[in-house]
Amino acid sequence: MNNALRELLAFQAKTWNLRGIASLLGWDSKTYMPPGGISARAQHASLMDGLVHERVTSDEYGRLLGSLIDLESGQVRDPSLNFQEQRLLTESVCDRKLAVALPNAFVQEFSEAGVQAERQWEIAREKDDYSLFAPHLERMIGLCKRKADYLALGTTPYDSLLYCYEPNATTVQLNHVFSDLRDETISLLSKLPERAQPRAAWLTADYDHAKQLELGRSLMKKMGANEQNIRLDLSTHPFCTTIHPSDIRITTRFGGLAEYIYTILHETGHALYEAGLPQEWYGSPLCEAISMGIHESQSRFWEVFIGKSRAFWETEFNLLKEAFPSQLSAVGFEEFYAASNPMGATLIRVGADELTYNLHIIIRFELEQQMINGTVNVSELPEMWNTKYRQYLGISPKSNREGILQDTHWSFGGIGYFPTYTLGNIYAAQWWKQIRKEMPDLDARIRAHDFVPILNWLKKKIHIVGRGQTSAELVRSITGGELSAWPLIDFLKERVQR
Amino acid sequence: MNNALRELLAFQAKTWNLRGIASLLGWDSKTYMPPGGISARAQHASLMDGLVHERVTSDEYGRLLGSLIDLESGQVRDPSLNFQEQRLLTESVCDRKLAVALPNAFVQEFSEAGVQAERQWEIAREKDDYSLFAPHLERMIGLCKRKADYLALGTTPYDSLLYCYEPNATTVQLNHVFSDLRDETISLLSKLPERAQPRAAWLTADYDHAKQLELGRSLMKKMGANEQNIRLDLSTHPFCTTIHPSDIRITTRFGGLAEYIYTILHETGHALYEAGLPQEWYGSPLCEAISMGIHESQSRFWEVFIGKSRAFWETEFNLLKEAFPSQLSAVGFEEFYAASNPMGATLIRVGADELTYNLHIIIRFELEQQMINGTVNVSELPEMWNTKYRQYLGISPKSNREGILQDTHWSFGGIGYFPTYTLGNIYAAQWWKQIRKEMPDLDARIRAHDFVPILNWLKKKIHIVGRGQTSAELVRSITGGELSAWPLIDFLKERVQR
Repeated sequence: MNNALRELLAFQAKTWNLRGIASLLGWDSKTYMPPGGISARAQHASLMDGLVHERVTSDEYGRLLGSLIDLESGQVRDPSLNFQEQRLLTESVCDRKLAVALPNAFVQEFSEAGVQAERQWEIAREKDDYSLFAPHLERMIGLCKRKADYLALGTTPYDSLLYCYEPNATTVQLNHVFSDLRDETISLLSKLPERAQPRAAWLTADYDHAKQLELGRSLMKKMGANEQNIRLDLSTHPFCTTIHPSDIRITTRFGGLAEYIYTILHETGHALYEAGLPQEWYGSPLCEAISMGIHESQSRFWEVFIGKSRAFWETEFNLLKEAFPSQLSAVGFEEFYAASNPMGATLIRVGADELTYNLHIIIRFELEQQMINGTVNVSELPEMWNTKYRQYLGISPKSNREGILQDTHWSFGGIGYFPTYTLGNIYAAQWWKQIRKEMPDLDARIRAHDFVPILNWLKKKIHIVGRGQTSAELVRSITGGELSAWPLIDFLKERVQR
Repeated sequence: MNNALRELLAFQAKTWNLRGIASLLGWDSKTYMPPGGISARAQHASLMDGLVHERVTSDEYGRLLGSLIDLESGQVRDPSLNFQEQRLLTESVCDRKLAVALPNAFVQEFSEAGVQAERQWEIAREKDDYSLFAPHLERMIGLCKRKADYLALGTTPYDSLLYCYEPNATTVQLNHVFSDLRDETISLLSKLPERAQPRAAWLTADYDHAKQLELGRSLMKKMGANEQNIRLDLSTHPFCTTIHPSDIRITTRFGGLAEYIYTILHETGHALYEAGLPQEWYGSPLCEAISMGIHESQSRFWEVFIGKSRAFWETEFNLLKEAFPSQLSAVGFEEFYAASNPMGATLIRVGADELTYNLHIIIRFELEQQMINGTVNVSELPEMWNTKYRQYLGISPKSNREGILQDTHWSFGGIGYFPTYTLGNIYAAQWWKQIRKEMPDLDARIRAHDFVPILNWLKKKIHIVGRGQTSAELVRSITGGELSAWPLIDFLKERVQR
């Protein structure tokens, strides 16, 4: 590696160190921070974010990067650099452009308005009163439009917002892929019986927390998570965060037993991706995830495609029975498996099954586009929400709390984020289709909880790539084809028939 | 407050925010960090330390401060500022002088040599081989001498080192005060029977951890610690750290039951001091502890003067019996109290009783002065150590691991730190003597675990002062007199006769 590149990498690593520290602040605030620390923590977090933004937009960084690549044209100055090195430079220029496109004052306004709106959203949801949130939502939509104008990426304003979470995806492409998925899902759903409310006591019992944590850690280990580098804690909402590739934290919570296991699979999937990124490029884009959608494909791969299989539960259920004999000894496998995998229309996204989940997302995605195109008035949104739920899911919320007020994303201006959830499912299904071809004994391995070969497949095909490929290139290199909802649709068809 | 002062305070608050973030990094590394994160954490910590040092020594800060006070003469420019504001400025100048006196390159050399020496000290202690540590100790002594030369505070080099931990204390004064204490302690010790090894099973049993934590948190609460702002976790070595005055963390560990309670009292004493500092001056020296010795006086006040009293244990023992009936029901109070308060010479400082603890410190203090005066060769230190232990404590270590290799402080260059431990005991005894005069029902309150009036006394007399007074001024304002070991000596005489 030449000296200028080495210097660039050192600069980027220091920036990433600041980001990692900011991540620790976030992790701590959701796990162990005493409640009274909250307002100081907001100051600490904004201080660190400011330091990161200062570095990324600094003249010093501009000079370092500019000596290796033309910041305007993206032309690498030294053509003898290898492919990865060139990639590092072009991706760094993309990130830098994104950072400098937004004026500091705007970034601050956006973030402060988001904090206010999120607080008002909480109150509005609590009181089930959309009118308290509407003016804040209107303001955030306005700010998102301005953000899109500053960025000016793609052909529509919504493309620019999408870019921040899923570079290389376009609104046109997603509308095309998602409409296949939507129509097929609605058709599958119409053939399902109504979702029954399972009422077995063992389903909602409070199982010993220490034993659940032990089960969770044991599963993480079998998935290939090194406990030297990845730890598990508790929080209200489960998440995964990276302090450094050598220090990754996931969290879970206690709800139903199956739900608990799905959360471990999901968050560990995220953590394994972070741990598998090429650490020799630490600090640079090469040691980062391709996109939110690809990240989600890793969590959903483990949660849905492995975790919802009979093969997985045939073994996991025995482990649960061993851990909780008094509560589970009378429960049969079929009863457990059915109750732990309910399917059917529900109102709340986070509790949705793998079939209907994407309808929740697609509704939000369709509404978001209308918000940004300005073809909708904020006051009409709840009715539009309810109508779409009736159309797609056949049910409609009785209150906005169970409807448009259920998610936090819009309050902090995260428009463009939702579609990456369904993209994650779509990618994961494409990986699933491929690994089934390449690993004929996949089911047997899952039944044996012999997960390391599966992790190694993901590592080799996806993790080690970092941002060395775009999401489209990755799909092509793994499947030989393009982004398509059909592997997911086929998977869902099988699931419905189970 | 005038605008320039407001601006200064905002600058200082931002610096303190960076310090608080660094504290969180330290807390996390000792509580929850996965072991693999250690080397990244060292980078994160040094990055934050660097940012703090940059700010404190920056031209911008120099200009801000210099517009309010002459940085050389310490003359406040606007005499109409009130007493606290003037104090803020003079103390800020002291801190700035200390920071700029040490060249960046030297600070880095010192810190890196300390990290190396600490690592070698661990190995040397493990292998009980002083020769592995000696060259590193020699290097650290040399660096401490250079540090003293850069600082050039007081009349001797050791004064300069002392200043970093205990401003306003001088070597001459401490030698005077400590020699009273040393001689009286040796005389008291000679009249004690040899320390018996208590062997009761209940003393070393492993009590339920969750219940111990509950007991600890309940005690913290009764001491006046607000759980919104002060939390308890576990670590190998107990400590207290401040992320922000609204977010303070203490840790403990499980050993003997009485030891566990003493640790809670000790660390909560530190935490209550931090929480009681005048937060309206956050960021400035006014919202900081006066010195390490004053800080230690708060922890030792609770641990030794309250915690070792019969009145305290008469109630606490009942709480322990309620929590652990099967292990403690057969134990009588006198048996418990005697076993939990053993007295007599031992070799290890951290396990020493309140009488002999100060002899451990005084030995180190005397040796440190010889190291810095250059009147001793590093190779002779173990023999000098052993001789002093024989002279003062009547026992002598058989190995350097139980002798000169037992403490980490010298390895990281913390020469000048040890005396603040005994200063803490001396100050605490002076507060104890005074509160007994002012609060006639003190014993009854302690017996009732009605600690809040005691905390309020400490708050009003000490915490709220911040660095608004020097330690000498504080002693004078509380006791009407000067620093003196006699209140401590009198207390120890009572303890020995108990």
